[in-house]
Amino acid sequence: MEIDPAFLATSESVGRLALSHVRLHTDARFPWLVLIPAVPGARELEDLAQGERDVLMEEILRAGVAVRAIGEAMGRPVSKLNVGQLGNVTPQLHLHVIGRRNDDAAWPAPVWGSGKPVAYGATELAAAVAAGRLSLGL
Amino acid sequence: MEIDPAFLATSESVGRLALSHVRLHTDARFPWLVLIPAVPGARELEDLAQGERDVLMEEILRAGVAVRAIGEAMGRPVSKLNVGQLGNVTPQLHLHVIGRRNDDAAWPAPVWGSGKPVAYGATELAAAVAAGRLSLGL
Repeated sequence: MEIDPAFLATSESVGRLALSHVRLHTDARFPWLVLIPAVPGARELEDLAQGERDVLMEEILRAGVAVRAIGEAMGRPVSKLNVGQLGNVTPQLHLHVIGRRNDDAAWPAPVWGSGKPVAYGATELAAAVAAGRLSLGL
Repeated sequence: MEIDPAFLATSESVGRLALSHVRLHTDARFPWLVLIPAVPGARELEDLAQGERDVLMEEILRAGVAVRAIGEAMGRPVSKLNVGQLGNVTPQLHLHVIGRRNDDAAWPAPVWGSGKPVAYGATELAAAVAAGRLSLGL
């Protein structure tokens, strides 16, 4: 399955779980992972088989743990998780798992469309990806 | 389990599934259901047992089908589903399942925080709740 170029431009590969590609969305304001189930043509949850949906739910949980680990690595521990499946702009099925804090740049609004992304520094990006990989066992 | 008063003020009961209370969010701009798992104290997906999460995933699917039915009943068929678990303002675990169209009031942005809710008329509200109940077998 090919990953939509829109994701390649805005995120960094973390690795592959049983169902999903995991990518770090490169906006340093938030620890933010994107899960892209490797199911060609899928746009909605209903396009997955039930077994795939159960695996996806567990991968969302694991992504939440990883997002907390990334927040710790960045010195900004997460206090709330946000999960979203939208796809209004990029239709390839994907799920956002985002770590939030009550002092973050968008709180309490959702992160999507809130302000402008902030680029990671190279060292910070490597540390965030490494923290995600370690948490996910990748 | 008590439903947070914030939901009672902004939504209408549709009924109860195996895990979740189902409520119609009363913003006539969008066919929009809220699932509130009846698990006291839950704030995140990780606060559910794995079996509960699997049930929740299937209830999200069913809510998506119901949201499409509500869109049909309102004469505005849905072309995209959006699912979100945020809880930044109201911490009680809940999931939004929203039907979107590329001519709706917020497209392609997320619905949360986008403009002001529009009240349903009484007849329209009854029809939306009835369409949701019929679809969910409630």
